[in-house]
Parts: sequence; C-alpha cells; structure tokens
Amino acid sequence: MNKNNFNRRNFIKNTATSSLGLAVLGTGSLSSISAPYIKKVTPRINFSVIGINHGHIYAQVEMILKGGGNFISFYGKEPELVSAFSKRYPNAKLAGSENEVLEDESVDLILSASIPDERAPLGIRAMLHGKDFMVDKPGITTLQQLEDVRYAQKKTNRIYSINTERCESQSIVKAGELVKSGAIGKVVQTIGLGPHRMNPGSRPEWFFDAERSGGIICDIGSHQFDQYLFFTGTTKPQVVAAQKGNINNTQYPLFEDFGDVMLRGDGGMGYLRVDWFSPDGLKTWGDGRLTILGTDGYIEIRKNIDIEGRPGRNHLFLVNQKERKYVDCSDVSLNYGQQLVDDVLNRTETAMGQEYCFLVAELGLIAQKKAQRIG
Amino acid sequence: MNKNNFNRRNFIKNTATSSLGLAVLGTGSLSSISAPYIKKVTPRINFSVIGINHGHIYAQVEMILKGGGNFISFYGKEPELVSAFSKRYPNAKLAGSENEVLEDESVDLILSASIPDERAPLGIRAMLHGKDFMVDKPGITTLQQLEDVRYAQKKTNRIYSINTERCESQSIVKAGELVKSGAIGKVVQTIGLGPHRMNPGSRPEWFFDAERSGGIICDIGSHQFDQYLFFTGTTKPQVVAAQKGNINNTQYPLFEDFGDVMLRGDGGMGYLRVDWFSPDGLKTWGDGRLTILGTDGYIEIRKNIDIEGRPGRNHLFLVNQKERKYVDCSDVSLNYGQQLVDDVLNRTETAMGQEYCFLVAELGLIAQKKAQRIG
Repeated sequence: MNKNNFNRRNFIKNTATSSLGLAVLGTGSLSSISAPYIKKVTPRINFSVIGINHGHIYAQVEMILKGGGNFISFYGKEPELVSAFSKRYPNAKLAGSENEVLEDESVDLILSASIPDERAPLGIRAMLHGKDFMVDKPGITTLQQLEDVRYAQKKTNRIYSINTERCESQSIVKAGELVKSGAIGKVVQTIGLGPHRMNPGSRPEWFFDAERSGGIICDIGSHQFDQYLFFTGTTKPQVVAAQKGNINNTQYPLFEDFGDVMLRGDGGMGYLRVDWFSPDGLKTWGDGRLTILGTDGYIEIRKNIDIEGRPGRNHLFLVNQKERKYVDCSDVSLNYGQQLVDDVLNRTETAMGQEYCFLVAELGLIAQKKAQRIG
Repeated sequence: MNKNNFNRRNFIKNTATSSLGLAVLGTGSLSSISAPYIKKVTPRINFSVIGINHGHIYAQVEMILKGGGNFISFYGKEPELVSAFSKRYPNAKLAGSENEVLEDESVDLILSASIPDERAPLGIRAMLHGKDFMVDKPGITTLQQLEDVRYAQKKTNRIYSINTERCESQSIVKAGELVKSGAIGKVVQTIGLGPHRMNPGSRPEWFFDAERSGGIICDIGSHQFDQYLFFTGTTKPQVVAAQKGNINNTQYPLFEDFGDVMLRGDGGMGYLRVDWFSPDGLKTWGDGRLTILGTDGYIEIRKNIDIEGRPGRNHLFLVNQKERKYVDCSDVSLNYGQQLVDDVLNRTETAMGQEYCFLVAELGLIAQKKAQRIG
C-alpha cells in the first residue's frame, strides 16, 4: 500500500460507527465481534470491496478494518445497495467500474459478497490482477469453479479465503481451544444445525434460485462443513448421504428450504441440517447449534440464542468426565481479520490454510451435487 | 382374571413403595411417572413377569400396576436378580419355571425385560399360550424374529406391545398434543439424540454383544424410530443411510458404541444418533434430545436434563410464528399402562397400534442391518 494515501482520521471515524451500522443492518455477528473492535488499529494494507449483494459484506469490512486494513474503494452494480453502503463508509471511494478497482495497484486485498455464483469468477480475476481475495460464503458454487479457482490460486500464489461463521464466533473459537486441550477426549462426531429465517419479502431474486445461491447445502452448510472438518480434524471426508428439497415454499420453484448431510472421515463422523424454517417467534434469525461429541465428554454451542434461557449469544456448555459447566466466551479474541492481514503482508496461511479452505468448499459442493431431491 | 385372587392390601402396599424402589434402582423414568402413580387403582387384569435381565422391568411393572394390573407371579433365571426383584414385589409369587407362568390360566398379560434376543421367542410362546405380551425395547432383534412374531400375533390375535420411552415421558406426550394442535405447522423432520452412560462394570455379558442386545441402532434407537414415525406420521419409512461401530471400546470386540441413521418417509425426514459416551460429569445417564422441526415452528425436548439450566427432567421448548416459551409438562397424564390394560380387556389397540409397533421395530432392524460398519 501507499502509506501516504492513508487517512487516519477517516479510518477511526469508520471504525467508530461500526457498532451502530452492524446493529441496524442485522448481520447477526455483532455481539460476538463488537468488543474486540473497540481498540484503534494501525492500518497495514489497503483493501477494496467489489460486490455488496449480501449484507455479510459489512461484517467482512469490519473484520479487516479491525485487522489492520485501510478501506480505500468499492464497487457495486446496484444503486440502492451502493447508496446504503456509501453512507456507512463515506471515506471509501465509489469506483466507476470493477476494473477500476482491479487495476488500482495500491489495493492489496479485495473483499466480496457479490451474488454467490459470481464470486469465484471475480476471485479469479482479482488473483490474476495480483490481489488477495476474501469472500463471503459460499465462496464457490460449482465443482468447475473450484477447479478454476484452485488453478488460478496456484498460478498466482494469491490468497482465496472464504469467510464462515467460525471467523466471527467467540463460542466456536472457544470450543476449538477446549477440544485442543483435550477437554472432551478424542472427537467422535459433530452435529450442526443451521436453521435460518427466510424473510422472503426482503430477499433479492437470486436468493430463490439454487443455481445462483449455490443451493442450501453448499450455501448455509458452509459453516457446518467447516466446523465438521475443523473439530474432527478430518482431511479425507466422505459424503455418506445427503438430501435437499423444497418442502414448503413451492411458490419459488428453484428454491431449496431443507437439506441434510451425513458425513464420515478419517477424523470422525458428522451430520448437518440446514433449513429456512426459523419461525417469527424466535428473537433471532436462527437457533444455530453445534454439538461436539467426544470420547470423554461433549460440548454444545447455542450460537445465537439460548431459548428461554440466558440472554445474548455464544452459549457454550461443556460436560466431561469431571464436570459440567456453562463456559463464558466473552473474553475470547477473534483473530481472523488480523491474521488475514498478516498473511497478505507475510505470504503465510495463519488465518486459514488454503488447502483447508478449498476442502471445506469441495465438501459442500460434493454434498450439494450428490444430494437426493426430496419433497 | 379370577377376581377372587386379587389381594387389594398387597397391591396398595406395592404401589406405595414404588417411588423409593424406582429411585434406588435408577430406571431413569421415575420423575415423569411418579406423580400419576399416587392414586389408587382398582386392578382389572392379572399379570406376570418372565425375564428380569434389564432394570426397565421395574418401570414396566409400575405402569401396569398403575394401569389396573394385579401382579401375581414372576420367573427369572438369575438368583441375584430374583432376590432384588422379590424384595421389591414380595406379594408376587416366584414361579419355579417359565412354563408355570405360561400355563397359569389366570394370567392375562406377561411382561418381560429378558435378554433382548430372547424376547421375541418368549413373546411368541406367551401369545401361543393365550397371553398378551408387553416387552422392553428392543422387543425384537432380527428380521426373522419379526416375521415369526408377526405370524404368531396374527394367528393368536394377542397383543405384542414394545415399550419405548414415549410411554413414560410427559414431555414427549405433551409434544404430541402440541403437534396435533398445529402449534408448529406440518412436521418436516425430527432429530433424536440418545446418548447413554456405559457403566461397563455394572453390565452383564450380553450387554457387550451386539447380536444379543440387538445392536446399538436397534436397541437404543427404538425410541428415536418411534418418535420419528409418531411425529412425522410416516407409514412408509426408508433408511437413507446408517452407520454403526465401535469407536472407543475395542476391548469389547462385539460391542457397538456409536450409531446414526438418516431417514425419509411419506410424512417427513428424520435423523438419529445413539451412543454410549455419556461422561461421568453428567448428572444423569444421558442428555437425550428431540427436536421436531415444523413448517411453522419447532419443539425441542431436553428429556433428562437441562444442562446448567432448570432442574429436573421433561423440558419442552416451543417456538412458533407467534411466540417462544418453556412448556411445563408436569400435568400431562401418562396413559399407556391404563390403555394397555383396557386393550387386554377390550381387544382394542388404544395403547399402541399393533402394526405401528411392528413398523417401529422393523425400521430399527432394517437400519441396524443396513448400517455400514465404521471405526
């Protein structure tokens, strides 16, 4: 980056408004990441955004701001999305085209939450222009795209990082520490439930088209595939069975509202269910759960809500041979943003192994493709 | 039954000691069934017990005492089991042989918790002797046994009832009422988790032999298969995939400590996981869960414990389009025992449809057989 371009006052201003912005936009990841964002960070790289079709882009920007990024420019095709985004980040320059961003030599890293099926081609263009790339999940929507991304990444030696909830979740990171310390013995299986609220009135057209969104298993399941591989340490996963279908939303014929997958691998077993059935009575968008079963205990995470229980998010329960307890995760640091900025500078893989990232994507793509159609 | 044989004083005495006895023996079903057992019941049939190898027999006896049974005799092969059982039911006559019970014309109903692979042959003998039969799960351990039981049942027109936890669970019965009333719309899927504590030191030899116990999916899974069929209303179930294995107890080479099954049917989908990994730090034998996902809401049951939450058992959480709430299940009546006694008298199927009972068993047997071996 050109350090002279850096405007410290604007950076701090952007950072300071982040809590409010995130809360208003309801990205769902606010409470877990707001605390660590309070401190000021000296920017170390320049980054830009291309594609703001999903609201997740706000959390992505916040992570990189916090990690040491200087947000210099962005491009989005849709005027209404651009308008809201500009208000939130008034000091990032609105570029006239995608190419203007890609050809800006001062840009180190490009973030994107474009329409899912457009993400991989964009990421390839970004890498071919010498940029690293961090993208919302699903970061790749077909096996052909995966092959192309793998090839371009190897050719360019750039970073292609796909952001899933583990990057932003104190409870999942805490579970990682506990499992690593042997708190539940050897992991036997993970079960991940990812219910989501559909909110059809607020969704763009591509949301209802499984080809464009990647399909429910590939899209939402990104989180659960990541958590399965991360907690079991599996490197050779296998889709034992998978199902997908449109059970109750047939007015959208290309939509999928239910999916589930049974997994097995060299590190353990896994099961995941994803759906769009979160009811309106729930105070959040989805009662996401993760249960990690070990030979000497288990961990349950209630990611977003403890129904009729404790307030807030990130509820972790641990039961093992010695004890059972509720574990407070509020002091856990979330380092994905900082590590990714480190990786951009040092050409390392501390935020997420590149092959690991592709393996998570590949597993989701295979499960989505292999899934039997139901309903 | 011969009404003159009935000894009312002894019956009341037996019933009055049930709370203490059940608590000491730890059948796990006490708190859900103790309240409705307080009232005195006029006995309407005679029943006996053959086979007391599993402690579940105590809960079975309590249910039938409460339902209107007069406990007249029992037979067990094992002196140490007989001794404890006699102390608990001093007024039931210890028979000298199985045949003595089978040939007693005053006996209407026989209960059994014998070794699982001996249950179906015993049940067939009981039916051929004109008795109805109520047996602990798994009530049948091979598909050949199922065929034989089906044939004998049809031939004799006797009752063959397999007892699962729904018969004894206020929260599951309550969930049934809620689902029936439309509280969560149409059921889409059930997920049942059945972790159990292994306690190897307290287990008899047959426990470690999957052939004798029926295998983990057929045995423990009985509950989850029943709940899947009951809540989805599926009549044509299909095992999409199943896995079974011995992950961490290879010192017992014939044992299975993990199993899971993915299901689909005309009424909805299902998944179940069963295991023997409950850690010692858990206050109960297993953190059993049932999640019923509907098109307009979901129900979660924490069957035995709400870890670090509310005391007691039978925790039901309901979230739908209008509200989310914790539902108290303490006033729910458990009618299985009374209905089974009614059925014995009236030749009806109010406690459990005979074909339904066989369908639950068949699903478990097919899943157990089809399961891929892991570990």
